[in-house]
Amino acid sequence: MTHQAILVLTTGGTIDKSYFDALSEYQIVESGIPALLAEARVALAHRVVEVMRKDSLELTDQDRAEIARAVREAPENRIVITHGTDTMTETAQVLAQAAPGKTICLTGALSPARFAETDAHFNLGMAFAAAQVARPGVYIAMSGEVFDGLKVRKDRAAGKFVAITQ
Amino acid sequence: MTHQAILVLTTGGTIDKSYFDALSEYQIVESGIPALLAEARVALAHRVVEVMRKDSLELTDQDRAEIARAVREAPENRIVITHGTDTMTETAQVLAQAAPGKTICLTGALSPARFAETDAHFNLGMAFAAAQVARPGVYIAMSGEVFDGLKVRKDRAAGKFVAITQ
Amino acid sequence: MTHQAILVLTTGGTIDKSYFDALSEYQIVESGIPALLAEARVALAHRVVEVMRKDSLELTDQDRAEIARAVREAPENRIVITHGTDTMTETAQVLAQAAPGKTICLTGALSPARFAETDAHFNLGMAFAAAQVARPGVYIAMSGEVFDGLKVRKDRAAGKFVAITQ
Amino acid sequence: MTHQAILVLTTGGTIDKSYFDALSEYQIVESGIPALLAEARVALAHRVVEVMRKDSLELTDQDRAEIARAVREAPENRIVITHGTDTMTETAQVLAQAAPGKTICLTGALSPARFAETDAHFNLGMAFAAAQVARPGVYIAMSGEVFDGLKVRKDRAAGKFVAITQ
Repeated sequence: MTHQAILVLTTGGTIDKSYFDALSEYQIVESGIPALLAEARVALAHRVVEVMRKDSLELTDQDRAEIARAVREAPENRIVITHGTDTMTETAQVLAQAAPGKTICLTGALSPARFAETDAHFNLGMAFAAAQVARPGVYIAMSGEVFDGLKVRKDRAAGKFVAITQ
Repeated sequence: MTHQAILVLTTGGTIDKSYFDALSEYQIVESGIPALLAEARVALAHRVVEVMRKDSLELTDQDRAEIARAVREAPENRIVITHGTDTMTETAQVLAQAAPGKTICLTGALSPARFAETDAHFNLGMAFAAAQVARPGVYIAMSGEVFDGLKVRKDRAAGKFVAITQ
Repeated sequence: MTHQAILVLTTGGTIDKSYFDALSEYQIVESGIPALLAEARVALAHRVVEVMRKDSLELTDQDRAEIARAVREAPENRIVITHGTDTMTETAQVLAQAAPGKTICLTGALSPARFAETDAHFNLGMAFAAAQVARPGVYIAMSGEVFDGLKVRKDRAAGKFVAITQ
Repeated sequence: MTHQAILVLTTGGTIDKSYFDALSEYQIVESGIPALLAEARVALAHRVVEVMRKDSLELTDQDRAEIARAVREAPENRIVITHGTDTMTETAQVLAQAAPGKTICLTGALSPARFAETDAHFNLGMAFAAAQVARPGVYIAMSGEVFDGLKVRKDRAAGKFVAITQ
């Protein structure tokens, strides 16, 4: 189990939302992911690259193509992607064909990382572990579970991700 | 990837240390793990059982036998154990023979979960994912990495876990 | 310095904003002030009353009249009011005539109390102290300072309250 | 109410305790007070000076004389002192004679400032306000109350400060 370095791609989403008093609104800001990894005392080799800074409802086909390209062209085979939760499964679909042989785990948060109470740290930890341990493929780590990225949906009303079984 | 329920065994350690003003000292207290899992919005079926409440430097052979028995007798095959970091690797050795066929991941924290800045949430997330995704065996999730539980040591001076390579 | 009980009136504002994933937006929610006072281990007699739950930009003349009435009719003479920051000074003007003989301190936050980093706790502490120690009148406690409530303005661009001097 | 600058003297105590994994113990560390003031967005002129870094049970007569000298020789008339809670009232007694004409407010915390849940921010806010608003004298701001520094005791069992009435 010699782990290669992990690449973390940030794309925006609730996990990186902050509040701006001067605007009376929330916006996605410079990613707090490097700070989270430092707080978690991550000693494993990794690098963090910001791909974009968007609410996932605003992601276009072109945006997803850009994420896929970043995954494909990366030297790393173990990739964590932070992403808004509303269209996380759509991006997973796109990535499924993008880079066979790589282990890709998407994650995000229902509560911003800057909140005192948040699922951000736990979710990022799950994604880090899944990227190291799981076989090549696309996964989504949310709601305490590592899902097959092609067999999961967000139940927005219930505030959780659930497996699609059939 | 249909996941069975996860069993979380708590044994104490820094992750559950709090501070008592009336004593001017820190003590291990009632486990904060259930609160962490709620904050992380874990929807995956799980139960949390307190096995003991000890600093890992105080764990005896009998204590480790008790942890091993709890693992062996549990109906769950996917087990997370929160544990003090100083002798976490010794417990991993004991567990290696205890329950073949089960996936066991030990974790803990260098900074108490009750701190504003802590590795507790991230580490617990790693352990949750490893317990779901990894093949049967004993693992240690610390310092951002999922280690083979038999090939890792704590570098106390450096404040991190490192793989034993050879 | 025998202190009478303190009345805390909550009216909404950023201090009580939370984030709702299901709506992808922030809203003012059930006040977190009682939880903040418990965390601060406040042993001084007090009660907390929610007057309204509004962004201060939405407050009407009628709303301010209602706040003034709550102040006037309260048995307590020492009153803390949590309030959105954008029109806090307007409410201070209204209260200046409302209840001579009472010590009233308005406060709020530039960053929601639910954030890991926030000015909410410190500001609430300032207001609690000012309500106990200051002579009757209307005060605003923000930006580390206890201001005369009639001689202060919010510098929105600079993100702080500043005294009006002349 | 033109406020002069505030001097914050730090002396140690629980408020500045951190945890050291390498030692398996808690120690008082470099003061976190400047970070707390930044988080609270304090715009009022102030400076922070570390006088010592001690548990208050270890403070000697000489230490208290040193604190008194720092108060007396400071150009500021409004002084906040962070201090361990166990002997905070003894230091208040010493300071009562030290600097007539100055407003001095001692504060501290029952739970370290580095904890996710702590009274540190609120207490520091109270002390900041009391130093600005109160008449010259020595005060203690703890448990949600600004006490006359000569008429208060710590009820260690109850975990709070209470006024001495008679």
